[in-house]
Amino acid sequence: MEIIRSNFKINLHKVYQAIEEADFFAIDGEFSGISDGPSVTALTSGFDTPEERYQKLKKHSMDFLLFQFGLCAFKYDHTDSKHITKSFNFYVFPKPFSRSSPDVKFVCQSSSIDFLASQGFDFNKVFCSGIPYLNQEEERQLREQFDEKRSQANGAGTMAKCPVTVPEDQKKFIDQVVEKIEDFLQNEEKKILDLEPCTGFQRKLIYQTLSWKFPKGIHVETLETEKEELNDAVGFSRVIHAIANSGKLVVGHNMLLDVMHTIHQFYCPLPADLNQFKEMTTCVFPRLLDTKLMASTQPFKDIINNTSLAELEKRLKETPFDPPKVESAEGFPSYNTASEQLHEAGYDAYITGLCFISMANYLGSLLGPSKVCVSARSKLIEPFFNKLFLMRVMDIPYLNLEGPDLQPKRDHVLHVTFPKEWKTSDLYQLFSAFGNIQISWIDDTSAFVSLSQPEQVQIAVNTSKYAESYRIQTYAEYVGKKREDKQVKRKWTEDSWKEVDRKQPIVPGPCSHTNSFTATGVIGKRNLSPDPQEAGSEDRELEEITDSELEQMDSCADPLPEGRKKAKKLKRLKKGTVADSPAMLFEVPDTW
Amino acid sequence: MEIIRSNFKINLHKVYQAIEEADFFAIDGEFSGISDGPSVTALTSGFDTPEERYQKLKKHSMDFLLFQFGLCAFKYDHTDSKHITKSFNFYVFPKPFSRSSPDVKFVCQSSSIDFLASQGFDFNKVFCSGIPYLNQEEERQLREQFDEKRSQANGAGTMAKCPVTVPEDQKKFIDQVVEKIEDFLQNEEKKILDLEPCTGFQRKLIYQTLSWKFPKGIHVETLETEKEELNDAVGFSRVIHAIANSGKLVVGHNMLLDVMHTIHQFYCPLPADLNQFKEMTTCVFPRLLDTKLMASTQPFKDIINNTSLAELEKRLKETPFDPPKVESAEGFPSYNTASEQLHEAGYDAYITGLCFISMANYLGSLLGPSKVCVSARSKLIEPFFNKLFLMRVMDIPYLNLEGPDLQPKRDHVLHVTFPKEWKTSDLYQLFSAFGNIQISWIDDTSAFVSLSQPEQVQIAVNTSKYAESYRIQTYAEYVGKKREDKQVKRKWTEDSWKEVDRKQPIVPGPCSHTNSFTATGVIGKRNLSPDPQEAGSEDRELEEITDSELEQMDSCADPLPEGRKKAKKLKRLKKGTVADSPAMLFEVPDTW
Repeated sequence: MEIIRSNFKINLHKVYQAIEEADFFAIDGEFSGISDGPSVTALTSGFDTPEERYQKLKKHSMDFLLFQFGLCAFKYDHTDSKHITKSFNFYVFPKPFSRSSPDVKFVCQSSSIDFLASQGFDFNKVFCSGIPYLNQEEERQLREQFDEKRSQANGAGTMAKCPVTVPEDQKKFIDQVVEKIEDFLQNEEKKILDLEPCTGFQRKLIYQTLSWKFPKGIHVETLETEKEELNDAVGFSRVIHAIANSGKLVVGHNMLLDVMHTIHQFYCPLPADLNQFKEMTTCVFPRLLDTKLMASTQPFKDIINNTSLAELEKRLKETPFDPPKVESAEGFPSYNTASEQLHEAGYDAYITGLCFISMANYLGSLLGPSKVCVSARSKLIEPFFNKLFLMRVMDIPYLNLEGPDLQPKRDHVLHVTFPKEWKTSDLYQLFSAFGNIQISWIDDTSAFVSLSQPEQVQIAVNTSKYAESYRIQTYAEYVGKKREDKQVKRKWTEDSWKEVDRKQPIVPGPCSHTNSFTATGVIGKRNLSPDPQEAGSEDRELEEITDSELEQMDSCADPLPEGRKKAKKLKRLKKGTVADSPAMLFEVPDTW
Repeated sequence: MEIIRSNFKINLHKVYQAIEEADFFAIDGEFSGISDGPSVTALTSGFDTPEERYQKLKKHSMDFLLFQFGLCAFKYDHTDSKHITKSFNFYVFPKPFSRSSPDVKFVCQSSSIDFLASQGFDFNKVFCSGIPYLNQEEERQLREQFDEKRSQANGAGTMAKCPVTVPEDQKKFIDQVVEKIEDFLQNEEKKILDLEPCTGFQRKLIYQTLSWKFPKGIHVETLETEKEELNDAVGFSRVIHAIANSGKLVVGHNMLLDVMHTIHQFYCPLPADLNQFKEMTTCVFPRLLDTKLMASTQPFKDIINNTSLAELEKRLKETPFDPPKVESAEGFPSYNTASEQLHEAGYDAYITGLCFISMANYLGSLLGPSKVCVSARSKLIEPFFNKLFLMRVMDIPYLNLEGPDLQPKRDHVLHVTFPKEWKTSDLYQLFSAFGNIQISWIDDTSAFVSLSQPEQVQIAVNTSKYAESYRIQTYAEYVGKKREDKQVKRKWTEDSWKEVDRKQPIVPGPCSHTNSFTATGVIGKRNLSPDPQEAGSEDRELEEITDSELEQMDSCADPLPEGRKKAKKLKRLKKGTVADSPAMLFEVPDTW
């Protein structure tokens, strides 16, 4: 179901109902761009730490607009053993609702726009008919503005002692109001008189005129029509709040950017460091599952070659997988996976959900006795909760939202600096004596080179000691120096803080939502380092970059309702059980 | 005539012909936004110097995209005493032409996008069908890439001594080529064999295969199909080059932003200071005329109340003006000014041209004996050449492209700093003793206040000496301190230059076009300060801001062809004549 500005309000109850009934959701977002700095390939390095990756995405991706949001709600029908879907495709645009409202500026990346154009994306629907939204700080400010206006209007002119000057074009309106009130006062049957809706200026004139015409006083009260206006302005954010408030499982494919964008656009600017981001995300979305991570992990890794969404969807129709029985709910148009509509967010969300169901059911089929339908609450899928796929990182497959990230050893990795003229072939030549190597560029003049055996690392460092054009150090040395540099830089930054501060645009304060963020701490569980071989890096081809860069997904939260409490309980349960088998995600036990 | 990517090439000759025949052009651009910093009202101050204004626009407006360009060519038909128009409406978008081509990022401002949407603007035409373009540096780089590729391809494999490894999927193609050549060599009648177009890789395979198969050597040459590809990539910039090369008069309405965008987008990043910008602009566009400035200047100022394009167009249909006789050329759709299509760049360019003709003819009617039709080369309009309207500057009506800018006295102006809680009413109260004042906000805590009499300035400064919450200084004191600060800051900047430099994205070097820029020096003529009363500031209303912010225009230049030389001659002539009556622009002599 396509939702734009004009049909948003009349369909919102359908969205709420779908969220209310659903077992889980799948979501997906389309953005106006991916990286406003270097290209994504140049920006990301195969040896980024999760903190580095977060900082890079925060810096280079958050100025783009999430302008299409797909939501597909899945509900299992036990009688007919099939999933009922309700799919929504929302167009989103920060249309300013008044002269004083925020005038959002966002960046577009030509290649992303051109890609979406080639897929038949309708930009007019975004820019002419997109649903507006506010983040939490903007909502708070607007609420304050309304409160202030109302208190001014209610109090204004209570003491008017002379006739009010009513502008010519308002006279007829005010005269009619006075007439109505005089009729009302003479008619003893009626207890309340509702005046017609009017502008703030007209309201002021009414208050002033009445206080002069009826010096003994009559009670006039402004009804809160602003509440409706406020709801209209908050717009699409209400959908995200509802998803978040449900506390239900939210599934996405390669969803890190979707999650970051959703929080940034509909809640508050992203926090300064990764740990705060984890806290915030766990609070907004208590249960996330990334199908790209799931497909890249055992037992799927060995039987799924290409984890891009389109290929994954195709693969999961074939043995040993079983395409799930799915039907769209009455009144909802159905998607046909045979005629692909990839990169329409609603469709992408839909097939992401299908992929999740197929993979979950496959896990069930491995059980003895096998289980035909695995629910979104099943323990079988818990190992995949709250772990987001990390694109093109060689030895850290996911960002762990519930605790510290995996710490790969990297004792076989070298950091090399060289003249900017060097190409990949120069590096291969330099390390030709060491057999198979893997190169991961950092920038024009440096790269990580991983050797096949850690013992070779010291040999490489030693042989380079007298080299003039290049320099080799171990990964540990590199990290140590970087940490030192950071401390020096921090000092420098603090010294010149005032200077910098003056130039910064005014940014809203921390998310007004912080109270509830503290409710969920980062769990102090430490995962084992997975075998680098298991980390799924080879299957990341160029095709995958373009493809997956544009397939992401989102959602968010408010106070703690029913669903949220359940989610917390589940999480605690999980802490108890999973901590005993921390490597579970990579070594699926035979019992599965 | 609407021109998009698909019909650009087949219509380019029509554009060239229109430019070739025209007496003058009118142009207009539509942008994805106006200011990425504060709102335009907050950004600009009524006492900005032209240099300050240039810096503000350069910093806060150049990241937006000029995505629709209107060009209307006007040619006078002496037989029928009417103007023949050819109007073009171009949609422009920086579609990347290959993986390695620049991936432009541009900013969109929600309010501007929303405004255009409300005017029925078709964003899909921009993003899905916009004509690509390159600036001069990008064109140079692409040309180099092609040259390099060709020289590699031509030289590759000349010495191949063993059979070439032809990939399986290319074998059939290469075999067919070899067969054709063998046939050709046996057929003595044919002197030349044209091979079919092929990819760069196939070309390499052909060269290698042939040098091995025919060791005695045969001459194979690559035809320059790249030239065609290069032209396609340069795309819309070719139109701007043609306008610039014509050296003809280019008319626009409130055209400063249009000119800045056109140079920035299709030539090179804007230079660091205003004087360099003037040199560059005079080189690219030797003759510009701004109808908003014209309408705000005597003899028009007294008889034209509202100078926004739509209102101006209406006003110029009434006495004492005479709407010109205009007809669209055969094959060109005609605009109807009765059914407004405002903010379509082609239409705005068209009515800008109409306004220019009406006002020029009015000047002719003032002559004794009166002149019915004033040409684009008439001396009557020379005083308006190369002066661009400055929006909302109180006492400097225009940016003078041909020399130093006007230096208003400002000895009646005070600079006031105060707590950020202050409002306009607080300032009025503070200066209540001084009669009429004009306030021009700079930022939250400072403003310029102009008094009606310069003698009051010192009194105001003296009375404020012991004030604690606010501070008053004369304009001269303020400028002096600012200059000092700038010098200190420059020193600081130089010290930390290396640090800053590292973080800067790589920007193309100065416009490759610099040689021709030096051809036109800034003329050292100094204009008199106009009477502040004459500077046209009162008629700048809020409506005007929104309206005019989105009505701008553009164009650009290459080497010096015929038209350009004429323009230079004219300019020299002007120097001689106008210098004698420097205030001509504001005091139209009776002979007009």
